[in-house]
Amino acid sequence: MTKRIALIGSGLIGCGWAVVFSRAGWDVAFHDIKPGRADQAVEDTKASLENLESCGFLESAADCAQHLFSVKSLDAAIEGATFVQENVLETPEEKLTVFEELDRKVPKDVTLGSSASTIPASAFTEQLEGRERCIIVHPCNPPYLVPLVEIVPAPWTAQATTDYCIKLMTDVNLVPILLHKEMYGFVLNRLQVALVNEAMHLVGKGVASATDVEKTLKNGLGLRWSFMGPFQTMDLAAPTGFKEYATKFGHSYRNMGKELGVAEEWSTDAIDQVDQFLRDEVPLDKLKERGQWRDRKLMKLAADGED
Amino acid sequence: MTKRIALIGSGLIGCGWAVVFSRAGWDVAFHDIKPGRADQAVEDTKASLENLESCGFLESAADCAQHLFSVKSLDAAIEGATFVQENVLETPEEKLTVFEELDRKVPKDVTLGSSASTIPASAFTEQLEGRERCIIVHPCNPPYLVPLVEIVPAPWTAQATTDYCIKLMTDVNLVPILLHKEMYGFVLNRLQVALVNEAMHLVGKGVASATDVEKTLKNGLGLRWSFMGPFQTMDLAAPTGFKEYATKFGHSYRNMGKELGVAEEWSTDAIDQVDQFLRDEVPLDKLKERGQWRDRKLMKLAADGED
Repeated sequence: MTKRIALIGSGLIGCGWAVVFSRAGWDVAFHDIKPGRADQAVEDTKASLENLESCGFLESAADCAQHLFSVKSLDAAIEGATFVQENVLETPEEKLTVFEELDRKVPKDVTLGSSASTIPASAFTEQLEGRERCIIVHPCNPPYLVPLVEIVPAPWTAQATTDYCIKLMTDVNLVPILLHKEMYGFVLNRLQVALVNEAMHLVGKGVASATDVEKTLKNGLGLRWSFMGPFQTMDLAAPTGFKEYATKFGHSYRNMGKELGVAEEWSTDAIDQVDQFLRDEVPLDKLKERGQWRDRKLMKLAADGED
Repeated sequence: MTKRIALIGSGLIGCGWAVVFSRAGWDVAFHDIKPGRADQAVEDTKASLENLESCGFLESAADCAQHLFSVKSLDAAIEGATFVQENVLETPEEKLTVFEELDRKVPKDVTLGSSASTIPASAFTEQLEGRERCIIVHPCNPPYLVPLVEIVPAPWTAQATTDYCIKLMTDVNLVPILLHKEMYGFVLNRLQVALVNEAMHLVGKGVASATDVEKTLKNGLGLRWSFMGPFQTMDLAAPTGFKEYATKFGHSYRNMGKELGVAEEWSTDAIDQVDQFLRDEVPLDKLKERGQWRDRKLMKLAADGED
């Protein structure tokens, strides 16, 4: 029998999941409370599948597309679902509303995942009867090319639920990591926010232009980080490895850490400068094409990563 | 006439510069106060050049190697130098000692660069007669494959010195960025420290294993950052771009920023966990080979980046 994922919420994240699961042979049911959005999601997902096929990253986009369905109601979406993944707005209230309905209606043996990117499951599942089958499964964007996925159980999530998700994500070719404690922002977004907030801070303070800060990642830090993490990068930056590096530079990291502007709000000026830089690079009406360009670059990286 | 760079300090950073400049046809004079170190630098640089050649990234390692010289004294190093680059220990005292001697001995029309990675030039050039020709030229590691370089003038650095360095770095195929204000850690290391400190914090708190935090970069955040900066990444994470993203997620970045552990010291436990993870991956005696593996990965990225 074909497995089936119900996607509750069919925006950018829902479409990403649809590629991942249809590629793995699952049926995908899109639902969205916004009229027309689920139909649009089928079209957007097809475009992504075709982009993958055209780059040789998928045998048949058409075969995958046959697995995609848009449905009118939540009830129709969850009917026969093997796994349910929620992708609605990032607020505890929205998540709670959806999870209450899902927990009432979905058979007890089906896992309920949430794409929450910052809010832990304990913020919206505590009162649910089936809270032990609720868990955060937070993907990257786009998940079919950036394979990391964060598995974040709440304190009451069953071990079996966690185990199921880790296996499921591996089966659909993603790279799961497991969080042992809930923490706002999880791992990925905390790391991202640390860097992005300091980047906004430096632009706002006039230390460097948005163009130059962007270059610092793409011509500098980001190159190594695409195949090694921060730890191995440090390991190779001192002749006898990380311990030497920590001894030599640890104090400098500590001193700098205290001076960073990561807790400061993004200034209006910094937002405007960054926006100006981005619009000069890519006009708004070319953003969708730029997304496909990004996907093609990621496909090259994925191909290189295999050897 | 062949141009000549004098490298004062011949460790890892000095060797990186030697590849960059010998590749561009410059003569390279290595000096180091540590006996034998300059000779070793010639050998290490040759090995890097050969690695580049074997991957088709350099026509002739032997041709480049002919430009490398080890000299016994600082006087011999600076004789006939077109440009002088200091790469000694990262302390204001060490830098000051070297710069005092350089400023006394090197002809006034020659620029004195420093590879300082965190300390601004004003911390060790204020009292020098020729302080207007002193400037930070901070490379990545390794600079011949990670092309970003930070140009950081002190308040008294001459505009001509800054202009010369930007042109020089472009000429030797690096990607210079210009800092308009001095700030401890400059741009690159502030961004790196923001992320690394939070990574160490998460490992120390037991939120995720060192392995999983490492994966978060190399299978997640770092993939996009190898060809787009943080700003374009956000631009493509909302259907109508960065302004929408900032409106939707700005408050979340602000809230998370306040909770990050970037100002905290690396715990001994976190250091040990990271070290254990790294040594399980690559034993200490294989670290040099791992550096060559990293270089080959970076060469692939550079080749991909060209289209």
